[in-house]
Amino acid sequence: MKLIIGNRNYSSWSLRGWLACKQSGLAFEELTVNISGEDWEEAKRAMGEVQPSRGKVPILWDGETVVWDSLAILEYLGDKVGRDRFWPKDDVARGMARSMVAEMHSGYLPLRRALPMNVRARHEGVDLPDPVKADVVRILQLWAEARARFGHGGPFLFGTFGAADVFYAPVVSRFVSYGIAVPGFAQAYMQAVWEHDWMQTWIKGAEDEQWVIEQWDTVPAA
Amino acid sequence: MKLIIGNRNYSSWSLRGWLACKQSGLAFEELTVNISGEDWEEAKRAMGEVQPSRGKVPILWDGETVVWDSLAILEYLGDKVGRDRFWPKDDVARGMARSMVAEMHSGYLPLRRALPMNVRARHEGVDLPDPVKADVVRILQLWAEARARFGHGGPFLFGTFGAADVFYAPVVSRFVSYGIAVPGFAQAYMQAVWEHDWMQTWIKGAEDEQWVIEQWDTVPAA
Repeated sequence: MKLIIGNRNYSSWSLRGWLACKQSGLAFEELTVNISGEDWEEAKRAMGEVQPSRGKVPILWDGETVVWDSLAILEYLGDKVGRDRFWPKDDVARGMARSMVAEMHSGYLPLRRALPMNVRARHEGVDLPDPVKADVVRILQLWAEARARFGHGGPFLFGTFGAADVFYAPVVSRFVSYGIAVPGFAQAYMQAVWEHDWMQTWIKGAEDEQWVIEQWDTVPAA
Repeated sequence: MKLIIGNRNYSSWSLRGWLACKQSGLAFEELTVNISGEDWEEAKRAMGEVQPSRGKVPILWDGETVVWDSLAILEYLGDKVGRDRFWPKDDVARGMARSMVAEMHSGYLPLRRALPMNVRARHEGVDLPDPVKADVVRILQLWAEARARFGHGGPFLFGTFGAADVFYAPVVSRFVSYGIAVPGFAQAYMQAVWEHDWMQTWIKGAEDEQWVIEQWDTVPAA
């Protein structure tokens, strides 16, 4: 298997696809492309030739199979290695985990636009527009609910690391980068995600990257 | 099981959730709420009390389980009745079907905003902005690719009706309502979706609805 990802510092969807590959336990090669660089235009043309990908990251190649969306990658890998590696076994918990992941996949546009993932950045006193605040509140409610009902005392949303953590990991990075104030339970959860071996590997990779995309490196304005 | 849906005429996500329930083969009750009416405010409050739904449709209740997103509903039902009822068995085909569904779930914002689903409407000569045209082209490419490689001569995207058809069914309705010109293979596919028993039941339901939401009933401007 081969996973094509964008800049570790900026590409939140790449982080999700990469964590999903890690979670699968399967071996995979990584190919990183600078999505703001000249190579990217060339890479997009190459991807376009391999229909039906759409020239966006991440893309998973598994022999003849091409999977070009982070959630599709996670589900495809779940098909291969068994659903239980990604999702809670309990129906009620799994219903909530699946809903949370889907909500992240299609929603939170205000948050995603105002606070682009930038693993290396540290901002303070960022003024959040109301729609972004509403997204933050909603995420904190979901984290609280998942951990209270299904956390089983473990550090992650549904106890052990799984699909929901994969999908909310870039949010953890955003909350860290933009100094979002969160209650204690959320701080503990964010710390668990941040200190996870795979996240540490990703963060180190982001810190070592030399590529800078200026539009995502400015302090966001309200 | 109980499925809460919005107006059949306008709610594309409700159509997806409802088709997923039909596809599961399981019995379910339906509760329809007018999302532009006063009842909707009351219903949202009621949903808010049943955490963690977010007051959007569709919502599936299955005993204690609450699933509040159309893709999550489809996957949750797949967990119950077996993946093969929704997804192709072949890995390569399933990788593409999963990617197409995920792309629909998170993307096509220009198309979704410019051409809101309105089952009853028939417009002609609609002038499409370039980003909407690009969405239409992309969808036609995916339909062509899926049918050519994995259609096996059947009428649907991957031969028999499945998750990809569930997710693109509202697009079929949009193409019909706004008179989008499509090549012959796409016309044949759209006809197969339109004439499917479940779609006919939904369309009849939309035609019988008395609720009108004016903002979605005007001719879209380019």
